[in-house]
Amino acid sequence: MKKVGIVMGSASDLPVVQKTMDALKALGIPYEAHVYSAHRTPAQAAAFASSARENGFGVIIAAAGMAAHLGGVLASMTTLPVIGIPCKSAALDGMDALLATVQMPSGIPVATVAIDGATNAALLAAEILAVTDGELAQKLADKRAKDAAAVLEKDCALQTGTP
Amino acid sequence: MKKVGIVMGSASDLPVVQKTMDALKALGIPYEAHVYSAHRTPAQAAAFASSARENGFGVIIAAAGMAAHLGGVLASMTTLPVIGIPCKSAALDGMDALLATVQMPSGIPVATVAIDGATNAALLAAEILAVTDGELAQKLADKRAKDAAAVLEKDCALQTGTP
Amino acid sequence: MKKVGIVMGSASDLPVVQKTMDALKALGIPYEAHVYSAHRTPAQAAAFASSARENGFGVIIAAAGMAAHLGGVLASMTTLPVIGIPCKSAALDGMDALLATVQMPSGIPVATVAIDGATNAALLAAEILAVTDGELAQKLADKRAKDAAAVLEKDCALQTGTP
Amino acid sequence: MKKVGIVMGSASDLPVVQKTMDALKALGIPYEAHVYSAHRTPAQAAAFASSARENGFGVIIAAAGMAAHLGGVLASMTTLPVIGIPCKSAALDGMDALLATVQMPSGIPVATVAIDGATNAALLAAEILAVTDGELAQKLADKRAKDAAAVLEKDCALQTGTP
Amino acid sequence: MKKVGIVMGSASDLPVVQKTMDALKALGIPYEAHVYSAHRTPAQAAAFASSARENGFGVIIAAAGMAAHLGGVLASMTTLPVIGIPCKSAALDGMDALLATVQMPSGIPVATVAIDGATNAALLAAEILAVTDGELAQKLADKRAKDAAAVLEKDCALQTGTP
Amino acid sequence: MKKVGIVMGSASDLPVVQKTMDALKALGIPYEAHVYSAHRTPAQAAAFASSARENGFGVIIAAAGMAAHLGGVLASMTTLPVIGIPCKSAALDGMDALLATVQMPSGIPVATVAIDGATNAALLAAEILAVTDGELAQKLADKRAKDAAAVLEKDCALQTGTP
Amino acid sequence: MKKVGIVMGSASDLPVVQKTMDALKALGIPYEAHVYSAHRTPAQAAAFASSARENGFGVIIAAAGMAAHLGGVLASMTTLPVIGIPCKSAALDGMDALLATVQMPSGIPVATVAIDGATNAALLAAEILAVTDGELAQKLADKRAKDAAAVLEKDCALQTGTP
Amino acid sequence: MKKVGIVMGSASDLPVVQKTMDALKALGIPYEAHVYSAHRTPAQAAAFASSARENGFGVIIAAAGMAAHLGGVLASMTTLPVIGIPCKSAALDGMDALLATVQMPSGIPVATVAIDGATNAALLAAEILAVTDGELAQKLADKRAKDAAAVLEKDCALQTGTP
Repeated sequence: MKKVGIVMGSASDLPVVQKTMDALKALGIPYEAHVYSAHRTPAQAAAFASSARENGFGVIIAAAGMAAHLGGVLASMTTLPVIGIPCKSAALDGMDALLATVQMPSGIPVATVAIDGATNAALLAAEILAVTDGELAQKLADKRAKDAAAVLEKDCALQTGTP
Repeated sequence: MKKVGIVMGSASDLPVVQKTMDALKALGIPYEAHVYSAHRTPAQAAAFASSARENGFGVIIAAAGMAAHLGGVLASMTTLPVIGIPCKSAALDGMDALLATVQMPSGIPVATVAIDGATNAALLAAEILAVTDGELAQKLADKRAKDAAAVLEKDCALQTGTP
Repeated sequence: MKKVGIVMGSASDLPVVQKTMDALKALGIPYEAHVYSAHRTPAQAAAFASSARENGFGVIIAAAGMAAHLGGVLASMTTLPVIGIPCKSAALDGMDALLATVQMPSGIPVATVAIDGATNAALLAAEILAVTDGELAQKLADKRAKDAAAVLEKDCALQTGTP
Repeated sequence: MKKVGIVMGSASDLPVVQKTMDALKALGIPYEAHVYSAHRTPAQAAAFASSARENGFGVIIAAAGMAAHLGGVLASMTTLPVIGIPCKSAALDGMDALLATVQMPSGIPVATVAIDGATNAALLAAEILAVTDGELAQKLADKRAKDAAAVLEKDCALQTGTP
Repeated sequence: MKKVGIVMGSASDLPVVQKTMDALKALGIPYEAHVYSAHRTPAQAAAFASSARENGFGVIIAAAGMAAHLGGVLASMTTLPVIGIPCKSAALDGMDALLATVQMPSGIPVATVAIDGATNAALLAAEILAVTDGELAQKLADKRAKDAAAVLEKDCALQTGTP
Repeated sequence: MKKVGIVMGSASDLPVVQKTMDALKALGIPYEAHVYSAHRTPAQAAAFASSARENGFGVIIAAAGMAAHLGGVLASMTTLPVIGIPCKSAALDGMDALLATVQMPSGIPVATVAIDGATNAALLAAEILAVTDGELAQKLADKRAKDAAAVLEKDCALQTGTP
Repeated sequence: MKKVGIVMGSASDLPVVQKTMDALKALGIPYEAHVYSAHRTPAQAAAFASSARENGFGVIIAAAGMAAHLGGVLASMTTLPVIGIPCKSAALDGMDALLATVQMPSGIPVATVAIDGATNAALLAAEILAVTDGELAQKLADKRAKDAAAVLEKDCALQTGTP
Repeated sequence: MKKVGIVMGSASDLPVVQKTMDALKALGIPYEAHVYSAHRTPAQAAAFASSARENGFGVIIAAAGMAAHLGGVLASMTTLPVIGIPCKSAALDGMDALLATVQMPSGIPVATVAIDGATNAALLAAEILAVTDGELAQKLADKRAKDAAAVLEKDCALQTGTP
């Protein structure tokens, strides 16, 4: 299976990105995680993205906050799909990172998920890999069923007064 | 090649979605476009999404404005990747559609592109299909090179005073 | 009396929704509360809404956060009035849920109350049922009088230096 | 059938409110429309609302822009359900009217629809009256079916290349 | 000297309004504070404002949060200047109260100060009363001088390393 | 009667400010209007404000757009009440001018009216002068009555189908 | 004198950037303008910035819209001061470009001017070069004096009724 | 070397500004810090800025919150580059200070950094001084290299499971 590359702009994004790694692990998807800053280590970020396809990656996930350029910078260096996680930081409640990630100009898309939407980034990466991987698609369907059952169990608990 | 399914919430989104269709056509990617409203025709929207994988689709693109639920509603019915185009409408400059598309709760991601980012939705779909399709990946790389050349041509014109 | 159906998108919305249940109880209005996610359990959500009228419900209240599609999804399945409570979550201070709930396109309204406005959702449901129920209308008028008295008591305490 | 009372804060809101009146007329719902400003004619606004129930009204719709207090002011004078239409004006794209309408404090709800959501205000009023009026509920269901058919017709036209 | 009338929409606004009262007291300006809700006790709010001029008030200060209608409602009942303090509440960081207070339509102004700007509301009231009161104007000038001295003292401390 | 001083930050604000001048003229209030920029002519702006009281002014109105510092700069130079009109300019719909005008730190208030709220600035100035001027207060009351009559006339026209 | 490098992300930004070039020309400051996209021609953008100092540039100005990464990408490649002009585009009124430009994480600043603030970008570049260039500083002081005179002339025209 | 002048609008901004001072100190850049309020001590603020060039300053940094006029007020008094740090305060998450600092009208730029971007303000000042100071430019390049190394060390730790 192709690997998922995860790049976070700062080690401080690790608590958010951990959820991405956990969700990938739960689905049995191999990944490799890096701390590369679009601004402080542009060369390494660019090198990672531009060689990602040949290095066996199928999707890249970029997590960054504030003027979050990481997703766009990586996307400009590869034709692999790049998923952006806008990270909430000290001010503006993540709106800065959201707009800096999602409002990409025509030509270079970044597939943006919710602010701090780290689990969904993993699931989206899985969905992308599952387009041609029936087994993974089944795992995703199973997870959906489990999630649904969990909701209905909560509903049941509510009916019986034991939530 | 797997097809791209395009769903727009209203026929009034067609001018935006046309750019998606043009970009897919230019890349030789087969697609099928529908007008299905998440609210006015929920059954058809759900039926389309839940049968999309078996009907040969690889990616779904959803375009909707205002409280844009279409992407989320389709995504809840399939494990195929769903790309959301938040469409700008009469008020709030597209911010409503952006937040209603991107801020999906954990479990069901929607890969969101820029407000009215119709061309990028097509390119993202292409990138997803190209993960396992070297020929399409090459087409995308060629388009990138062409786009770069167009920028540099503009730069050249600026230098020679002929922009 | 017709019942009020309460649907919350996640069990984590229960602390907010509890205030809705308390206010309905105080007015003697029967209700039934469920945890149904628009995205994780779309079938159950749809089934609840589409059968609500025949099951004796008069109003449905939907509480959800982030890209809050629940109100719209339920409203698309019934012609009963649907009240939406946009719930505040980790980012954006509830603005995402507000816009995703209130900005419904023409055809399918969701009667939106304030962010986390759980008590008002109950009161609005009561007002709706009281359109044709004089006794309930009187209870609402009595509650208004009591609320006014409580304000004036606070004013009085302020005058006498005992707030 | 109970009447719908429509109050607009300024005659300049008439183009928006016209859609409310058209939608009510199409459903055969009697209504009465007034221009009463919450600030310039508070006495008349209050008088209308406080006598609305005894005058045969079942729902009140308030349309106002900017610091839109009209919905709240009317709601404070009646226990009938009050629907607020936040009207877009010269600045801020309607966000001011939306927040001033929807963010009502606990005790006095205003059922808010989208910015300039005049048709939905009428439909919500109809849904409220239809809670105990099976014939009107059927009309609403018929309208839903017609709306759905219109969407599917557009979809059909798109398939056959005649949109 | 004319009195300043202070009206808060809820007793929960008292911690904010306390700063208004303290600042007025420090300037020797008589005031009277009330808890009157625009929505829960509209009659008392209206009565206070409409009789304020004849009761010896020169300025009214209104403090309210969320869809803060209080300033506008009081202003509609008097030609005395009304100062609005938008109070920050649980969501939206006070933006709702700011817009609901400041965006008054033509005809009925509310002199708006900063979110939770309780001291400035008192100073603005004082400035208004000081237009024709030389002694009060002098007190305000003295306070300005004292405030300036406090800033310069901080600057001095910073220079000498003792801040 | 004391004069109203009007300062606009740029001659381009004149169309907005014209409404202020018209409203003052209609009320018979003497005024003097100037173009003084807080940034381009700080000395003149400061000189005007610091001598305003002794020059017979009772209120100052400041109209400015973008990072609208004019109101604050003038207010820092006088203890007269300063009214700020945030002017809408090319971007951000006036939100920049609104926040730069209203969010004054403690010590120096600016009485802010709505974005482009030029007529209300004049009315607020009149209300301030009318605190101790019964004749002007009567004029304001008369204007209120006339405004109310105009609303009711519109309402009447609506009833008779002649709006 | 050191040159100013101007980089615009797209030829469509030229109308905005033209004002930058005009202002630099008026001050006699040499400049070189390029169209380099941070995403479509990252190599050229990086090459320009990383060699800018040795190529005789003293300041770089970057103009870009939407998720405006250009300023940050250039700044990451040079220790020359980089000035960012956030350009307004089809949606969100320039707020996306502003946040994507100004909210740079610690380590790599971008000196941000107003949305579409093209003239100010030139003036800021001039101020930077004038830190050690007395003649240019004088030109800037002269321009300030001329700007002030223009304001006062407008004021004069207003007084004499000839604006 | 020319000095950096730091002005904060209030002593409460010191915790933010401390990071500016630390960063300047680390680079060996002389600075002088003051507490001068644009509104409470306008004379001192103006005097500092207008004499800054002749007093050996090369750059001024202004830190202020809310309706942050300090940067603009200082900039209007000097042709030295002025850097603005918008400080986050109790409401609106710093958006007010950001817009009040960055949205300067044409003629008087303020080089704005991120909300609470105190370290970047120092680095930008250093970059400005380094335009003609090769040694300082080298120090900045060294800091960039050190920052990059720190990122890569974090990346390394992540690979070896020791973050």
